[in-house]
Amino acid sequence: MTYTDVTMVRIYLTEGDRLLHRLLGHLHDTERVMGVTVFRGTAGFGRSGKIHGEGIVDIAFDLPLVVEFFDTPERVEEVLGGIEGWLGPGHVVQWPARVNA
Amino acid sequence: MTYTDVTMVRIYLTEGDRLLHRLLGHLHDTERVMGVTVFRGTAGFGRSGKIHGEGIVDIAFDLPLVVEFFDTPERVEEVLGGIEGWLGPGHVVQWPARVNA
Amino acid sequence: MTYTDVTMVRIYLTEGDRLLHRLLGHLHDTERVMGVTVFRGTAGFGRSGKIHGEGIVDIAFDLPLVVEFFDTPERVEEVLGGIEGWLGPGHVVQWPARVNA
Repeated sequence: MTYTDVTMVRIYLTEGDRLLHRLLGHLHDTERVMGVTVFRGTAGFGRSGKIHGEGIVDIAFDLPLVVEFFDTPERVEEVLGGIEGWLGPGHVVQWPARVNA
Repeated sequence: MTYTDVTMVRIYLTEGDRLLHRLLGHLHDTERVMGVTVFRGTAGFGRSGKIHGEGIVDIAFDLPLVVEFFDTPERVEEVLGGIEGWLGPGHVVQWPARVNA
Repeated sequence: MTYTDVTMVRIYLTEGDRLLHRLLGHLHDTERVMGVTVFRGTAGFGRSGKIHGEGIVDIAFDLPLVVEFFDTPERVEEVLGGIEGWLGPGHVVQWPARVNA
């Protein structure tokens, strides 16, 4: 296989943020990044220390969501610059990777 | 903890590809990689720009799937060489990591 | 965006391990790591080669679970030192990443 350098990104939301549709629309329609996948966690907690999880009735609608995508390092930097105002600190993780070309 | 160097791999499919069983069988029976986990995304899009997701009736059967595994860098290179013909460009992401020994 | 160096960690369990609650409680209450998310896989296998997956009746309660978290490299090293006795070899993967500050 031959490869292209990319930056992997994982953005941590919860369903209660109501940011998912806006973010997906932006990544798809405006930024046209190479690929995006959304995963729903079954439990989790963030900096607040508040646990989000299924099976705890009053937070059943606040499950963790992860929006994962990758693109060239330059594109990822541009894309994240465009959405940084939407997301608090500690919510956007990135690392270098390679994708088959 | 002591560690061994590995390569992490994430392969992006959709349920509509009908590749999952073949790929899992190959990784398990033939390649015997150290560990494989399959995750189902709740929404996503790839290079085509076509959105895959639950809640959109006619693509309810085409949810994203991610096949994740890791093994030594040498083994991963061999394994990916054996399956590269199955997968289009932009579907196999890898990066260096460490696993507890 | 400005960034902080972190170590990403993924811990591979199965539901049958019955370790999830203990591990989450430890990471949340004792270690207070920056954020934890739990994902349930839909199929998988580990070093034993035994396949875990939905749709196979007698192992329906042994689906793969991944506990993902990140924190500073120093904190992650401490945290993993505290739980290494709980987890067999080949179950804790880590790699360097960056998080928005």
